[in-house]
Amino acid sequence: MGAGKTTALRAVADAGLETTEVDELMEAELGMPIRRAFEELGEEGFRAREAEVVGELLERADGGAIALGGGSVLSERVRAALARHVVVWLEVSAEDAWRRIEGTQRPLARTFEDVQRLFAVREPVYEELADAIVMAADTGVVSRALPAILALRELPAGTSLLWAVSDSGEYPVMVGEKLLGRWWPLDGRRFCVTDTDVAGLYAERLEPLEARVEVEPGEQAKTLAEAERVLRELTEAGMLRSDHVAALGGGVVGDLAGFCAHTYQRGVPVVQVPTTVVAQVDSAYGGKTGVDLPQGKNYVGAYHQPAGVLADVATLRSLPGEELAAGWVEVVKTGLLAGGRLWDEVLAAGPPAGVPDEERRRIVLACARFKCAVVAADERDSGARQTLNLGHTVGHAIEAATGYRRYRHGEAVGLGLLAALSLSDAGELRATVRGLLADAGLPLVLDGSVDPDAVLASIQRDKKRTAAGVTFVLLAEPGAPRPGQIVDPDRVERAVRELYE
Amino acid sequence: MGAGKTTALRAVADAGLETTEVDELMEAELGMPIRRAFEELGEEGFRAREAEVVGELLERADGGAIALGGGSVLSERVRAALARHVVVWLEVSAEDAWRRIEGTQRPLARTFEDVQRLFAVREPVYEELADAIVMAADTGVVSRALPAILALRELPAGTSLLWAVSDSGEYPVMVGEKLLGRWWPLDGRRFCVTDTDVAGLYAERLEPLEARVEVEPGEQAKTLAEAERVLRELTEAGMLRSDHVAALGGGVVGDLAGFCAHTYQRGVPVVQVPTTVVAQVDSAYGGKTGVDLPQGKNYVGAYHQPAGVLADVATLRSLPGEELAAGWVEVVKTGLLAGGRLWDEVLAAGPPAGVPDEERRRIVLACARFKCAVVAADERDSGARQTLNLGHTVGHAIEAATGYRRYRHGEAVGLGLLAALSLSDAGELRATVRGLLADAGLPLVLDGSVDPDAVLASIQRDKKRTAAGVTFVLLAEPGAPRPGQIVDPDRVERAVRELYE
Repeated sequence: MGAGKTTALRAVADAGLETTEVDELMEAELGMPIRRAFEELGEEGFRAREAEVVGELLERADGGAIALGGGSVLSERVRAALARHVVVWLEVSAEDAWRRIEGTQRPLARTFEDVQRLFAVREPVYEELADAIVMAADTGVVSRALPAILALRELPAGTSLLWAVSDSGEYPVMVGEKLLGRWWPLDGRRFCVTDTDVAGLYAERLEPLEARVEVEPGEQAKTLAEAERVLRELTEAGMLRSDHVAALGGGVVGDLAGFCAHTYQRGVPVVQVPTTVVAQVDSAYGGKTGVDLPQGKNYVGAYHQPAGVLADVATLRSLPGEELAAGWVEVVKTGLLAGGRLWDEVLAAGPPAGVPDEERRRIVLACARFKCAVVAADERDSGARQTLNLGHTVGHAIEAATGYRRYRHGEAVGLGLLAALSLSDAGELRATVRGLLADAGLPLVLDGSVDPDAVLASIQRDKKRTAAGVTFVLLAEPGAPRPGQIVDPDRVERAVRELYE
Repeated sequence: MGAGKTTALRAVADAGLETTEVDELMEAELGMPIRRAFEELGEEGFRAREAEVVGELLERADGGAIALGGGSVLSERVRAALARHVVVWLEVSAEDAWRRIEGTQRPLARTFEDVQRLFAVREPVYEELADAIVMAADTGVVSRALPAILALRELPAGTSLLWAVSDSGEYPVMVGEKLLGRWWPLDGRRFCVTDTDVAGLYAERLEPLEARVEVEPGEQAKTLAEAERVLRELTEAGMLRSDHVAALGGGVVGDLAGFCAHTYQRGVPVVQVPTTVVAQVDSAYGGKTGVDLPQGKNYVGAYHQPAGVLADVATLRSLPGEELAAGWVEVVKTGLLAGGRLWDEVLAAGPPAGVPDEERRRIVLACARFKCAVVAADERDSGARQTLNLGHTVGHAIEAATGYRRYRHGEAVGLGLLAALSLSDAGELRATVRGLLADAGLPLVLDGSVDPDAVLASIQRDKKRTAAGVTFVLLAEPGAPRPGQIVDPDRVERAVRELYE
């Protein structure tokens, strides 16, 4: 309720689809307004009739669009009948929903607390049923998302669409298996930027490509010199402002290609096609792009929201075990930040190598949703988004102090998570996370050859340093991060030295 | 009328200044509503009383803010009395004004045509009187512009403020003489990027500076390698996200420093301090930043609106004559695009070296206003802004074909203007512009050593090329540019070959 179903249905009707509003249908069937039917039949009686009417409708409906009442999905028959439909969840917060419906006298939602109770029960059901999740925005959002929603009809079962919204733009995120080559969010000519490893595996599936620019795999490709080489090759290949970049690969390729797209003739769109865990659960979303300087990671960059993201979890199968494990650290981080169901799921998933594709799909989608929600609230990193840096202050410092060679990004961030939890006085949670890292075969201690003073000096050069000092994201319990915390330097030193034990 | 004077006055009152609304004062003086006073006294009688009341008010008022009726300035006494005040013009288009006042039954503005007539008479008066011009935006704009407006009280007489507005931000533009060191739009620490020529002349006046990074003068500084060097030096100097860049110099420094500010840790503010004609009349405004690739000028860049612009025309005195002349070409271009009073002023000004400072100030301000208005309408270069490219398609190609060494940017654009006017079949106007270039001592023909085929090939690589081909801005008469014109290649070739004659 209050999500904008009626407006959405109008957009769908404008696009030429047949539409049915279940509330209207029910009122016609019952011969009275919903409110009165609730009074006369009671909630249970009403739901029983609703399940019949809606169930039958869903079982025979074909090709059109139906706006379901928010409570219809509580019926098992309705849920079963939805299996043959593309289910779109218009996601709205309880606060926004209440703002919109306050004063409309809904029988089940007379107070904000009623709305919160309904949401607590229904949201997990929506999440389970939804093929497409459209983040609440203005009234035109469903109309803009419609092509991507309709595309779901042709994509493999289990594909999910998230319509991500932020201040500077909105875009479709497709998560599924075997998506490459099946869908593309933009018209126009594609210019692929990828690395030499990934190119051989997947670039062909993105055809037709006007050109393919390859970089060496690994963080050392994230330099301005490499960006210049890529930009020159795109120029030589004749890329125009009306063309776009396809960033195929992990976080490094996504950051570099996104930066090149942002700066190529002052900006062309980029479609992110992440092929690693880090990229699929984190870095492909939210528009941070950039390259490194010798002085620090991502010191040069820009915000450039993607025009779309294709996360095909089948590509994770080709990852070496250590890469998969290192990437999983971002899943652990996201679970810690999100808390609740996602954290439970991370704990239950076990070592990354053994997680089945279907569960990976669910986790990737949940992480993408969490990330996109954070970015929606704070695109430019002035508040909520800083929480995503959990574990990264020390993690980045470890990478910098070891020349980005000794540890994979995820391995360093794993150690950074342990340090952050120490700084948060969260000993038990630190032990839990240490257990997850251990199960994944990730490093639990810093190698003795790494100079602790170099790590500490790197921390002091942190990009997010403010005039008041270096800040940390602290977290005493899952779901409750506290960004922007200034920590006593002695405690930081102890937390780093603890990483050698 | 309809500019938002009442809202503006409220913002000023909120800031603690005493405020007077002249319309209210008049109604109190006359004991009747303005509309009735108009009927009873006639316009002439009303204006006479108004001139007395307002004249007296202005002659004695001190320290507060007064909202003048739009017609008050028609009185000579009022205009004379305004000399001791800071005059703020809330600039609104006739269209917007009409939208706001339609139906309010103003005696002099019963139809849109009335409004247009009033604007035609009054705008030149406002332009003449205004110390500050605030571009119409939301109702909060005057409140945000207030610190810059109040700063005018302490700045040299003749200083003008333009409050520039565009989709991605708004900023103060100060135009005057001897401004450096007298005013700064931002708090926080300043890091200066400049060139070795300008550094010695003016960098000291921007103190306190945390650091100064210098590049070699000239287009060859606009590379990604130089950008990286600047970014590294800023890093080494300890620049934080809460700090900002001061770009002191001409177009090259502005573009390079702006690009570095845009990308430094994903963005810090930049204050543009243009010291050349091109920069003061054109490139400092509107947020285009970037560097070159060997394949073309500004092939790598981003939009990054300045946090403020300080255009001190006193800095133009230190320019070599050839630089001044080359820069003047952008004034000619702006005059051609704007038409009307600005074009008349350009024609009347004569050779650039002989233009007095006061007239330079006026011309710089007029060009800045024109540029900012175009950017306000089309920040991302999808329509109106492309008109600013008049003369630049061939101009850039000449620069590229000669390795950016043979001609100054302005010299190449001057030749480009001649080519564009040929393509526009504007023979007479071409002759006029040729005369202006000749008077300024600028090249009128391409040097025989320049390969015409190289120029033609460069045109084909134009950054603004669309899938349909290279587009030109054509202009058959001043004030009437037509962007996005596809021209027959034979005609382009003839126009280029004509430049050798």
